[in-house]
Amino acid sequence: MKSAIPDLLGIEYPILQGGMVWVSDGNLAAAVSEAGALGMIGAGGMTPEVLAAEIDIAKSLTDKPFGVNIPLVRTDSGDLLRVMGEKGVKVLSTSAGSPKKHTSEAHALGMKVVHVVSNVRMALKAQEAGVDIIVAEGFEAGGHNGFDELSTLVLVPQVADAVEVPVVAAGGIADARGMVAAFALGAEGVQLGTRFVASVESPAHPNYKELIISAPDTGTVITGRAFGPTRVLKTALAEKILQAEREGWSSDEILEMIGFGRNMRASMEGDLEEGSFMCGQVAGMIREIKPAVEIVRDMVEGCAVVLARLQE
Amino acid sequence: MKSAIPDLLGIEYPILQGGMVWVSDGNLAAAVSEAGALGMIGAGGMTPEVLAAEIDIAKSLTDKPFGVNIPLVRTDSGDLLRVMGEKGVKVLSTSAGSPKKHTSEAHALGMKVVHVVSNVRMALKAQEAGVDIIVAEGFEAGGHNGFDELSTLVLVPQVADAVEVPVVAAGGIADARGMVAAFALGAEGVQLGTRFVASVESPAHPNYKELIISAPDTGTVITGRAFGPTRVLKTALAEKILQAEREGWSSDEILEMIGFGRNMRASMEGDLEEGSFMCGQVAGMIREIKPAVEIVRDMVEGCAVVLARLQE
Repeated sequence: MKSAIPDLLGIEYPILQGGMVWVSDGNLAAAVSEAGALGMIGAGGMTPEVLAAEIDIAKSLTDKPFGVNIPLVRTDSGDLLRVMGEKGVKVLSTSAGSPKKHTSEAHALGMKVVHVVSNVRMALKAQEAGVDIIVAEGFEAGGHNGFDELSTLVLVPQVADAVEVPVVAAGGIADARGMVAAFALGAEGVQLGTRFVASVESPAHPNYKELIISAPDTGTVITGRAFGPTRVLKTALAEKILQAEREGWSSDEILEMIGFGRNMRASMEGDLEEGSFMCGQVAGMIREIKPAVEIVRDMVEGCAVVLARLQE
Repeated sequence: MKSAIPDLLGIEYPILQGGMVWVSDGNLAAAVSEAGALGMIGAGGMTPEVLAAEIDIAKSLTDKPFGVNIPLVRTDSGDLLRVMGEKGVKVLSTSAGSPKKHTSEAHALGMKVVHVVSNVRMALKAQEAGVDIIVAEGFEAGGHNGFDELSTLVLVPQVADAVEVPVVAAGGIADARGMVAAFALGAEGVQLGTRFVASVESPAHPNYKELIISAPDTGTVITGRAFGPTRVLKTALAEKILQAEREGWSSDEILEMIGFGRNMRASMEGDLEEGSFMCGQVAGMIREIKPAVEIVRDMVEGCAVVLARLQE
């Protein structure tokens, strides 16, 4: 399937691993990049020093390019970008903020810039800011989610129609069927998050990976819909949060329940009682913890099978 | 693209028109069936007598098979089914209730049965009830919507994996890109609702059709999320309903605002102030009111273009 993305990013396959807070370190990014896709370190929960160390780990494990995701809500995002520049990272992924914030600086540092959007207006702004690739992420995606709730199926073709830069589809994709679907819709690549959380190399706690591979189709919910929609696994804590929302608790009270610490407790400690596990709807299709190289290989080989089936 | 559905239903293309309350009459159903797809009368708002008259209209306009959708919440659904039997309608589409209710009776009357589901558990129940085709309808779809909020992209492959009967994808599809995507995901057909509301032959009020073709990507919202999720166009009334929900009004008070009459007032009278316009997220991709025959032809011809693009 035709794509400008491999050449643009210097990779073999147009598959990106989402850079997720707590669960995408240098080890995972290197494993994904070694497999021919684009690995990504999620700098969301990292100090500049920790990010530097994770980049060093990735560089010790692969010579291939990898990226770093910086959530633009971080007030010290400039410090994280400087670390990337010093270490020669080739791809900056940005989300949760204005694409103007760092795109020019990243380009000056020799990086390509990938920006995540959840509607057409954001896509046009990203293109205007000069980003190289737009990731169109649908409502299915795990973690922080747009307010507009556009699904990947309707978002991708509308973004592809609206912009000239290559579009990557994210949200709801875990196998070759989703990848071919994304290309049919006009995407030139896919970004996978949850699928790589349930990989051998991900630093996610074993409990987290187990929850993903045992989740049913209806295994995730959106918490914080009114003030910061976040897709998480439907645990007892998630049900408690939804109940509090129905009862009209204040955002502050609810945020206390679902804040920063909850996510770390889930991701790193596997706390089944008090942790909030970010997860995409696609968990219901993930049944096995696999090495990153197998995830990528199965996607690529599967595409040929799906395409052949479409031609029958 | 391979599909068991044309043979099963006696049609040319595996494209179904959703049978929508108020906006799918005998005239629209006949136009869609004449175009080689499966037209469907939406009996939701019809008495048995009105349904009989609409079936007669459709039969006067086409010799090709068409279907009737009966929402199973109707307490007189058996009467509607009897009318279908007397008139020799070939396809029963059921939704919003147990697939056991009428499947055997419809089979005895020589009909094929199509049942709409929004999660895997419902799909398994439908298969057990003996339905011939399962429509997997995602969160993107207009009108009444499942509580689980599974998008078409994640729902279709999971339903296709779970059942043996052919699966039709619904929700978020309006063009050939969506149709090829659906087949990549494992569907053998597509069902379109909103696209056919904005057809020349649909009895929807001109205001309704205009609202659809001018809607942006973010033009729909879910109202009644807590007690009966319904996707509608984001009109002033819809915003008022969402505000009432945020303020914690009771379901009865909110239902008064969004009830039965509101939908009819929108669909038939085009009441921009007091009407509630059911509509899928895909409205943002619909820019032209077209005859049903063009909608079907553009889908079919477009599939060849999309498939060729995937092979480049």
